Amino acid sequence: MSFSASVLTLYPEMFPGALGLSLAGRALVSGTWSLEAIQIRDFASDRHRTVDDTPAGGGAGMVMRADVLASAIDHASPEGDPRPRLLMSPRGKPLTQARVRELAAGPGVVIVCGRFEGVDQRVIDARVLEEVSVGDFILSGGEPAALVLLDAVVRLLPGVMGNAVSGDEESFENGVLEHPHYTRPQEFEGRQIPEVLTSGNHKNIAAWRRRESERLTRERRPDLLAAQPLVK
Amino acid sequence: MSFSASVLTLYPEMFPGALGLSLAGRALVSGTWSLEAIQIRDFASDRHRTVDDTPAGGGAGMVMRADVLASAIDHASPEGDPRPRLLMSPRGKPLTQARVRELAAGPGVVIVCGRFEGVDQRVIDARVLEEVSVGDFILSGGEPAALVLLDAVVRLLPGVMGNAVSGDEESFENGVLEHPHYTRPQEFEGRQIPEVLTSGNHKNIAAWRRRESERLTRERRPDLLAAQPLVK
Repeated sequence: MSFSASVLTLYPEMFPGALGLSLAGRALVSGTWSLEAIQIRDFASDRHRTVDDTPAGGGAGMVMRADVLASAIDHASPEGDPRPRLLMSPRGKPLTQARVRELAAGPGVVIVCGRFEGVDQRVIDARVLEEVSVGDFILSGGEPAALVLLDAVVRLLPGVMGNAVSGDEESFENGVLEHPHYTRPQEFEGRQIPEVLTSGNHKNIAAWRRRESERLTRERRPDLLAAQPLVK
Repeated sequence: MSFSASVLTLYPEMFPGALGLSLAGRALVSGTWSLEAIQIRDFASDRHRTVDDTPAGGGAGMVMRADVLASAIDHASPEGDPRPRLLMSPRGKPLTQARVRELAAGPGVVIVCGRFEGVDQRVIDARVLEEVSVGDFILSGGEPAALVLLDAVVRLLPGVMGNAVSGDEESFENGVLEHPHYTRPQEFEGRQIPEVLTSGNHKNIAAWRRRESERLTRERRPDLLAAQPLVK
């Protein structure tokens, strides 16, 4: 069964976007996954197709209405739909590679893209939306975050990556950042490839890479080392 | 002077993508910013236009060549170009709203999108690329991350957001997550807007929002509270 993604958005024309090309695009064409972009505005009930209103209590910006969004969600993901429902939001739980793997192992995903100042809290509660953040910064809406999340998930679907080994040796998969890479030419602007890498000694190469991974992680992301023990 | 973004990529057709619509798209048309997507492959010197090669020391995947990428960078960002040069990479420093603000205040940005297993370390060193990560997960390439970074930056450029106040009251700007939002209708599936928000008492509303912000941050992101004091 193929992985099914439904994205609720005010900008359905942003999809598939970058996901229509390269790895994800080929997998879309081959049916490894499917993508449906749903226009939230189609579920507005007034003649102006209003989806937002001013925030209760005052303040800047506009808030997405609970009732309109709930109708869109109920259409995209009726009761019994086994797919998790995510809301891309800077207030959410930071996305991790572990969560990406979980999502990729599941039947698909329903993604709500917020816009404006935010989404009425009552639809988040009533439809049990899982708030997910792709980082500690603010976007114009959830759409670029949804593109990132889907890209991360789709590359893990069976058959999408040419070389399956690739997925296991990367940053975060072992709780550390990946070691530096080198390739031909042997010399670039006077800089050589580190000798150990061209030695042919696989044990030394593995040890060097492990050391470099740990050094980089210590220098750049000590928080990762604190979060989990350095064992495979 | 307008903000100038140059993106080096193997998939120039992924740009402007989502950035061609909505806020960022209107700002692109109005000249608030400009976007140039440069095909790295055009800087390969052999007849097959090869941009990658097998990793020194063995292992899965392919590595982007230092010489080809350096030529592309030198074309896009010749000596004297004041723009910072970023490499989107999961090994990089996590992007923050503070860094987004800095970038938005500058002349523009040069973004290198890695693909395959990674980029030859020597070009990162020789061209002083600042490695930037949008989160602890792995993408098929730097392109979706570049879309996210540019979206975050462009919305802060002068004139892009309709309501300038909007930018200051959001998650991370004050070191806390944003409070919940509500809007009409007053009742949604039996759920009411919290009474305080419709009281008209601005002092109580502000206090409630501050309390809710702090509660959410404590519950979801205690790391943010640890990172900086809770003062404005």
